[in-house]
Amino acid sequence: MIRVIPGPACVTLVIDRPERRNALTNAMYADLDLALQAAQKDPDCNAVILTGSDGHFTAGNDLSEFQSPRGDGDSPALAFLRRLAGIDVPVIAAVEGRAVGVGVTLLQHCDFVYAAQDALFSLPFVSLGLCPEGGSSLLMAQMAGPRRTAEWLLLGKPFTAGQACDSGFITAVTPPGQALERARQTAEELATQPGQALRGSKRLLRRAGRIALEQAFDAERDLFAERLRSDEAQAAFQRFFDKRK
Amino acid sequence: MIRVIPGPACVTLVIDRPERRNALTNAMYADLDLALQAAQKDPDCNAVILTGSDGHFTAGNDLSEFQSPRGDGDSPALAFLRRLAGIDVPVIAAVEGRAVGVGVTLLQHCDFVYAAQDALFSLPFVSLGLCPEGGSSLLMAQMAGPRRTAEWLLLGKPFTAGQACDSGFITAVTPPGQALERARQTAEELATQPGQALRGSKRLLRRAGRIALEQAFDAERDLFAERLRSDEAQAAFQRFFDKRK
Amino acid sequence: MIRVIPGPACVTLVIDRPERRNALTNAMYADLDLALQAAQKDPDCNAVILTGSDGHFTAGNDLSEFQSPRGDGDSPALAFLRRLAGIDVPVIAAVEGRAVGVGVTLLQHCDFVYAAQDALFSLPFVSLGLCPEGGSSLLMAQMAGPRRTAEWLLLGKPFTAGQACDSGFITAVTPPGQALERARQTAEELATQPGQALRGSKRLLRRAGRIALEQAFDAERDLFAERLRSDEAQAAFQRFFDKRK
Repeated sequence: MIRVIPGPACVTLVIDRPERRNALTNAMYADLDLALQAAQKDPDCNAVILTGSDGHFTAGNDLSEFQSPRGDGDSPALAFLRRLAGIDVPVIAAVEGRAVGVGVTLLQHCDFVYAAQDALFSLPFVSLGLCPEGGSSLLMAQMAGPRRTAEWLLLGKPFTAGQACDSGFITAVTPPGQALERARQTAEELATQPGQALRGSKRLLRRAGRIALEQAFDAERDLFAERLRSDEAQAAFQRFFDKRK
Repeated sequence: MIRVIPGPACVTLVIDRPERRNALTNAMYADLDLALQAAQKDPDCNAVILTGSDGHFTAGNDLSEFQSPRGDGDSPALAFLRRLAGIDVPVIAAVEGRAVGVGVTLLQHCDFVYAAQDALFSLPFVSLGLCPEGGSSLLMAQMAGPRRTAEWLLLGKPFTAGQACDSGFITAVTPPGQALERARQTAEELATQPGQALRGSKRLLRRAGRIALEQAFDAERDLFAERLRSDEAQAAFQRFFDKRK
Repeated sequence: MIRVIPGPACVTLVIDRPERRNALTNAMYADLDLALQAAQKDPDCNAVILTGSDGHFTAGNDLSEFQSPRGDGDSPALAFLRRLAGIDVPVIAAVEGRAVGVGVTLLQHCDFVYAAQDALFSLPFVSLGLCPEGGSSLLMAQMAGPRRTAEWLLLGKPFTAGQACDSGFITAVTPPGQALERARQTAEELATQPGQALRGSKRLLRRAGRIALEQAFDAERDLFAERLRSDEAQAAFQRFFDKRK
């Protein structure tokens, strides 16, 4: 359900589960993780493109996986996000349609994000009885400022590509259907850069925030696990599945 | 002089000293502090609204209290700001008219700030021979960027609600006279969120910056006390009171 | 090649090497460093203005100095940037024409930056096989956000004064030819502020970020030295000089 399209200096990863609006399962996170590892090891790879199939980015984590009990360590989602945050190869996201929950969270670990004008973002963690995860509690305010962060995370207010761009959360807005094309142009520009300078520079840009990010990952993971077991969350999941029937 | 208006899931605190444009005294800080403690203890409280009476937010700290000698520890103003920075319940500020000095500083510790189009903000600390306080030396650049911070704090340049919003310092601008109404709408939205998820998420958002904020509070307090005793500051206060006669 | 124009409460430093578009040499960094030390020691100095001659700010570091071997410690460029980052007197930059490489890096350590509408900024480190330096890996994202930072540093995309201003990287845009005049107005406003309050407040604003900045300076310096010796970089320099012949 993750399609990997190799290219000369760029690999494209497609989240491909259209029957569930590309909702992510543990198996899909593991596939993404492996694909990132391969890109990192390939010295000719100057860019990773991340996108979704069939007009959507991703509906976020498959909620049915939130209902099963969970161990103490990192979830496959978090293991993938740590990998994404640590990769030296620049990552470009191309967003069409809906990006929900972890589908928004992961954009914070990408270097370039292009979104179609009619794309819509939402972080409904609090209304599901949960909390921000994957670095959002630290990075969102750094990218979009604390005012947008409070609206998006505490109120769970959805936001458009235009609002995401104005606040600094994404790189640019494209016409509908052209986010992937725009991502490819940037990948081509990156392909002309000296690879070692590119990777070293990205590593330098991430260096200063690394420790604070690891601490955020950990603190969020622990509260998220606690929230998952809460009555507030389990009641919210039940309402979600009752509605879908 | 602090009016407390209880509500079902929200408490409203009104700075109410219109004869001095709601200038804040030590007694008023203490009342605000107590009201925040009560909100934190009430499990049904999902929002605190902070506003001023009679068309103004607040003229800032009552300058006459700056002329009396001061002990080594936290001032009542700083004790209140620490409380405000530490509360888990979301805080919404509604600003009409003038917000001066600590009246601007405290907005940085609120989660949502709505200001009327004709509201005016100013931080005249340096021209009074003083320095930023209450976390401004750290938070203002994080919210509004270092360029606006230098203008507002070093030059003491006043700024409008529109400028505050464009820079990310406040959440939104409202038509004149409608800031409180807008704050109430957000409080109603917050009332529908699961309370424990809401508080936990806000705590998480503040977690990463907590230690740096405490260090900023301390460093600012020490320089502020030194500046208060300086000839520059005492001369500036004298000019202020001479003008008012 | 650095002209120092003394004034009553403000000193103006002019980068003056028009035959090389004001490219900076080690001797020029040393002169700038001395001038900043003198300003810091002069209790009547409330502002330093930094500008370039003949319609340009600076073409950046003289590339011929990158071809000679370099010791382990700070380069003269970095010693100057540390001084600039540490000075308590507010610094105002006035930018006309081109600002390249370290000419953009140094703006991050200024408090006010005015640039003419037709000014153009670029950071071609990666395409030269190099990496960000002088604090950019930390400060640029804090000023302009991570999205602009990735475009400017990883892609090496040039940007206009308008883009620099919209992202929060500079203070304001002026009509062509009027950046210096605008800088002088701000210097005059600063001249009316109490000097000790002004310096203390600036010191406070820089306090929180100081340790992280020193760590960034060091990490960048080490990677920059490594990159300088790389085949990628030496090949890029060779192409530059071949083109110029």
